[in-house]
Amino acid sequence: MTRPSGRSPEQLRAVRITRNFTRHAEGSVLVEFGDTQVLCTASVEESLPPFLRGKGQGWVTAEYGMLPRSTHTRMAREAAKGKQSGRTQEIQRLIGRSLRAVVDLKALGERQITVDCDVIQADGGTRTASITGACVAVHDALAGLVAAGKLPASPLRDWVAAISVGIYKGVPVLDLDYPEDSDCETDMNVVMTGSGGFVEVQGTAEGTPFARAELDCLLGLAADGIARLVQLQKDAVAPR
Amino acid sequence: MTRPSGRSPEQLRAVRITRNFTRHAEGSVLVEFGDTQVLCTASVEESLPPFLRGKGQGWVTAEYGMLPRSTHTRMAREAAKGKQSGRTQEIQRLIGRSLRAVVDLKALGERQITVDCDVIQADGGTRTASITGACVAVHDALAGLVAAGKLPASPLRDWVAAISVGIYKGVPVLDLDYPEDSDCETDMNVVMTGSGGFVEVQGTAEGTPFARAELDCLLGLAADGIARLVQLQKDAVAPR
Amino acid sequence: MTRPSGRSPEQLRAVRITRNFTRHAEGSVLVEFGDTQVLCTASVEESLPPFLRGKGQGWVTAEYGMLPRSTHTRMAREAAKGKQSGRTQEIQRLIGRSLRAVVDLKALGERQITVDCDVIQADGGTRTASITGACVAVHDALAGLVAAGKLPASPLRDWVAAISVGIYKGVPVLDLDYPEDSDCETDMNVVMTGSGGFVEVQGTAEGTPFARAELDCLLGLAADGIARLVQLQKDAVAPR
Amino acid sequence: MTRPSGRSPEQLRAVRITRNFTRHAEGSVLVEFGDTQVLCTASVEESLPPFLRGKGQGWVTAEYGMLPRSTHTRMAREAAKGKQSGRTQEIQRLIGRSLRAVVDLKALGERQITVDCDVIQADGGTRTASITGACVAVHDALAGLVAAGKLPASPLRDWVAAISVGIYKGVPVLDLDYPEDSDCETDMNVVMTGSGGFVEVQGTAEGTPFARAELDCLLGLAADGIARLVQLQKDAVAPR
Amino acid sequence: MTRPSGRSPEQLRAVRITRNFTRHAEGSVLVEFGDTQVLCTASVEESLPPFLRGKGQGWVTAEYGMLPRSTHTRMAREAAKGKQSGRTQEIQRLIGRSLRAVVDLKALGERQITVDCDVIQADGGTRTASITGACVAVHDALAGLVAAGKLPASPLRDWVAAISVGIYKGVPVLDLDYPEDSDCETDMNVVMTGSGGFVEVQGTAEGTPFARAELDCLLGLAADGIARLVQLQKDAVAPR
Amino acid sequence: MTRPSGRSPEQLRAVRITRNFTRHAEGSVLVEFGDTQVLCTASVEESLPPFLRGKGQGWVTAEYGMLPRSTHTRMAREAAKGKQSGRTQEIQRLIGRSLRAVVDLKALGERQITVDCDVIQADGGTRTASITGACVAVHDALAGLVAAGKLPASPLRDWVAAISVGIYKGVPVLDLDYPEDSDCETDMNVVMTGSGGFVEVQGTAEGTPFARAELDCLLGLAADGIARLVQLQKDAVAPR
Repeated sequence: MTRPSGRSPEQLRAVRITRNFTRHAEGSVLVEFGDTQVLCTASVEESLPPFLRGKGQGWVTAEYGMLPRSTHTRMAREAAKGKQSGRTQEIQRLIGRSLRAVVDLKALGERQITVDCDVIQADGGTRTASITGACVAVHDALAGLVAAGKLPASPLRDWVAAISVGIYKGVPVLDLDYPEDSDCETDMNVVMTGSGGFVEVQGTAEGTPFARAELDCLLGLAADGIARLVQLQKDAVAPR
Repeated sequence: MTRPSGRSPEQLRAVRITRNFTRHAEGSVLVEFGDTQVLCTASVEESLPPFLRGKGQGWVTAEYGMLPRSTHTRMAREAAKGKQSGRTQEIQRLIGRSLRAVVDLKALGERQITVDCDVIQADGGTRTASITGACVAVHDALAGLVAAGKLPASPLRDWVAAISVGIYKGVPVLDLDYPEDSDCETDMNVVMTGSGGFVEVQGTAEGTPFARAELDCLLGLAADGIARLVQLQKDAVAPR
Repeated sequence: MTRPSGRSPEQLRAVRITRNFTRHAEGSVLVEFGDTQVLCTASVEESLPPFLRGKGQGWVTAEYGMLPRSTHTRMAREAAKGKQSGRTQEIQRLIGRSLRAVVDLKALGERQITVDCDVIQADGGTRTASITGACVAVHDALAGLVAAGKLPASPLRDWVAAISVGIYKGVPVLDLDYPEDSDCETDMNVVMTGSGGFVEVQGTAEGTPFARAELDCLLGLAADGIARLVQLQKDAVAPR
Repeated sequence: MTRPSGRSPEQLRAVRITRNFTRHAEGSVLVEFGDTQVLCTASVEESLPPFLRGKGQGWVTAEYGMLPRSTHTRMAREAAKGKQSGRTQEIQRLIGRSLRAVVDLKALGERQITVDCDVIQADGGTRTASITGACVAVHDALAGLVAAGKLPASPLRDWVAAISVGIYKGVPVLDLDYPEDSDCETDMNVVMTGSGGFVEVQGTAEGTPFARAELDCLLGLAADGIARLVQLQKDAVAPR
Repeated sequence: MTRPSGRSPEQLRAVRITRNFTRHAEGSVLVEFGDTQVLCTASVEESLPPFLRGKGQGWVTAEYGMLPRSTHTRMAREAAKGKQSGRTQEIQRLIGRSLRAVVDLKALGERQITVDCDVIQADGGTRTASITGACVAVHDALAGLVAAGKLPASPLRDWVAAISVGIYKGVPVLDLDYPEDSDCETDMNVVMTGSGGFVEVQGTAEGTPFARAELDCLLGLAADGIARLVQLQKDAVAPR
Repeated sequence: MTRPSGRSPEQLRAVRITRNFTRHAEGSVLVEFGDTQVLCTASVEESLPPFLRGKGQGWVTAEYGMLPRSTHTRMAREAAKGKQSGRTQEIQRLIGRSLRAVVDLKALGERQITVDCDVIQADGGTRTASITGACVAVHDALAGLVAAGKLPASPLRDWVAAISVGIYKGVPVLDLDYPEDSDCETDMNVVMTGSGGFVEVQGTAEGTPFARAELDCLLGLAADGIARLVQLQKDAVAPR
């Protein structure tokens, strides 16, 4: 088997994390997994929506969107259609849960961090890139709160990153791009922390169901890939 | 550890599958997992929506809803709010994918089967009960097409059923009810076929991330539980 | 003339009122008029929506829905369409007005009772079955408030029930089922109290207009039928 | 008892029917019941919406709206809120049914007449004024089709008009204005044809239920009032 | 060139301003520019929406609508479609800005004036007629506040009126009616105050772009027309 | 007077036009006016929506959006709110009209070009940057159709560009940035072609109305600025 991109099965695409990509957001990261480009911004609000107030903790939430022509053929704009698709809602709920797994909400205080993940260009793996980039944007927003003296220490307890794995032409592969994603038998998105704990595992058999052995193999691939992504997150925020 | 219901960790709730629960639908099943009750109807339409036509195959789709007072406190009616929640959309997409995994869409011909899963009473596990009951409703609807001479044989290739597993007070348990679901550390929904293949695995760490060993244990519990559910499906349709 | 069901013109269908049908609601009644089955739940909230507060009285409101396959052919789900039809709104307004006619809102205090009438199976007369069943559900919810010491006595001043009457093949008949309803010249829904007062009269000529004599005859039929329904309500709540 | 307006119980308000009020519509009538003013236009379209085609008949439908400041205090604009209220939908369904009762839809051919009833000023009885004015607008639109040689004769089989009756301070009165409507015990809208047949009867007890004798009395009042309205319709279209 | 109406290029249509057209609104003006008829009502509310409170000033806002059959062929009702078109929103924003340019919001106090401009009959120039009529309605509403002792003096600082100009068959003309509007090369709406200041200039080349000299000529025509409109506004409110 | 940015009154911000910014669109341009960054993509569809078919011409339309954190404080996402604001609709209608002014729709054939202008970062002037960048994206999409042999020559008849002008602290200035825009008395957006014709002129007095002399001065400033922008467009597409 040869992957369309020529990568080896356990090879990530070129991953780039560019901080401070735009100026207004408290955290702003452009994350690239090959040709997939997602702008992740973290916005800090010093208050909570009414239904979250008074619980002695903060909140982290996420929204996700795709620019209409981020895709091969133009997708209808969700704002014009007047509603977000089920897929969009599913992804933004996943991003939010993943980030909350590594933020100490009590330590955050009665603040809300809203992460926006907007896909500039799509080539598969937009949700895993979003989680990986969003975590760095949240890191930066929290660092800003510490720098401003609003928090004694960052409530970020660990890193969180995500990768897709799947069985493509019978072979388990890491980090599917669009041609692989459209043509694979099993597709799994895995979200893990820097210390190796699982936050989310979402596997779907597109065609024939998959066996336990395949699942085990995919989880191993994912764990390796995420360890490399976390290292890239750390490198991105390291002082130069 | 004692489960609130007094069940042992690997024990299912009492599962009941009542066929022909209502009269109009081609398949109509009331499925009960303990106090969780879901009415699953399968409706056959002899045509497809425009965007699915002309591909030489049929389609199976699902919708999900909760009666406003199926829950402990009344939930707002989605029809009155004018939109379905992200959770609703996520669940109905999951049910549809699970059913399509065991229906031969080509053999179905240019027909659509719409499954409606409406929760009459909720006590945890509504999505897994829905999938388990919906498969029987689809079985009956397809059997009706065969009986009517519209299909030579049923396009149902296998059974599909689903169960939740989770880590409750440190112990892996099967088939979480509402008190367990509200208070567990890790929650996983697993969908498998009668022949033991995985269709969907969706695990979420509610609090602390979970380890690979825990994941392995949960998958084993789920596989055992689903084997028992599939037997109950087979019993339900067996001639008496 | 023979009615499709073989009933005599002044004969009700078999009416069944099953209390405590589900567990979470303060009042939960499955009402059956022949093959028409409606689940009526009454939910008590200890507060009012903002625009009803501070008037020294409570409120009773109703919502109505049909499961998509309660009908002969599948109806689109209103939650998925994003709006409730004019018919749905008309019916839920009618149910709410009917119930408020027999509840002493001042005695209820600043509470709201929301009644949900969800049609499980439809065979004509869903709105009249809804009113008849909802009154029992409200009875039970109010009895619960008395039992809990929150009210000194039930604010239910009288029973309220409803029935349809119509002119089918030239003959005035009581309690139309779906085949009659689809094929009758005049259709009237009548809501009355246990003491014989009219709460609502809604008559519509489907084809040729109807004469005063016909109207008089229909009102008489309805009054007789409702007296029998009220007796069934009383029987349903009587101690055994 | 004295009515706020000083009218006798069986007295209509001053009713005015002004034809050709605006220029573009095929029928355009301003109808006034005292201070209630409704502009009723009838628009002819030479085709039907898809779901009505091919049945060998036409259709008459109605829409209803209130200008935001037709009322004592400003009402929110339904177009800005993004949906029509239940009340609006109930009224426009009533207007449509009433008009269809007197139009021979087969004779109309595959055309649609859409009637718009827009309330310019409201002082009670907007739905009854709408029906009464709309019938004249439909008359004029159909006369136009005859004059243009598109129809051999008008498909209008009879007149239809509507009036409200109610029990105000214990006395049955005809044609309630806003002060009476806000303060009456029973409110009934009656729609009848020129030949005295009932098309719709919609009675509601606002407070205490009403007795059969009261209902009989109200129906008699309404029949008298409608006979006078039909005469005014005939006068309005009579050649001068 | 001859204008379809036979007017000279710099001639306005017959303009009529009828005050107190309906009874409930604090200001109610029917404005007619030839066959274009717009009902403009100004409603005073003694409070502001939450996001405008506490700034020590009031607000003037506008909404715009067209009756479905104000136009040559029936337009779909925006309330039924569930949203206002882009054109509607553009016009109501323009009307609101124009009125705010001449009202001293600080002097108005924490009140809101909502102007509704509803087109009864359309023949081109509905937005300019709306602004011109709305200013008189606002004048009357403010005069009412002064008369009621709620304001020491009217916060209306100047008059504001609007007119369209365009190049029709190569000739700059004033106050386009519908046949001209549908067939002109350049269309400009100009809003000016009584003292001759520009509030809004919105020019659009429908076909070929326009030259600076044409723009200059159109602005001159507009200024002349608006001076005449302002005189008509003053006449309309002058004591008789 | 000193402008906040230190620019002279007639000085544009640094303008950059980057072609082929993303890969999937037929034309993809990142346009920067200082810190304002807009991604403009042009998508070609080889068919038209139903209401535009059969007229022997094509269509150019535009949609506009802002990423939620393109602004100083986060704006609610329009897709989540379920509708586009009046401002959004106004801007996208303006962009569409401006582009259609320079495209020969007949020569385009029965194709639609949809331009998406998505604001990545906002600092004033997003609509003028959008028009200026969109024209280059359309140029590239049309050039692609010529290169593919689908059109004999590009239907782009001229360039079109846009700039804002305003009176800031009493001085007419070109190309307002956000601090100027928030604090200026008069704000005008001007759209012109490469040959110097006006396509749109939209001037608004934010505070006191503006005089004819000011308007004249602003139009001159704008014409100079647009001439420079058109040169930058030509440079951007020139072979290197």
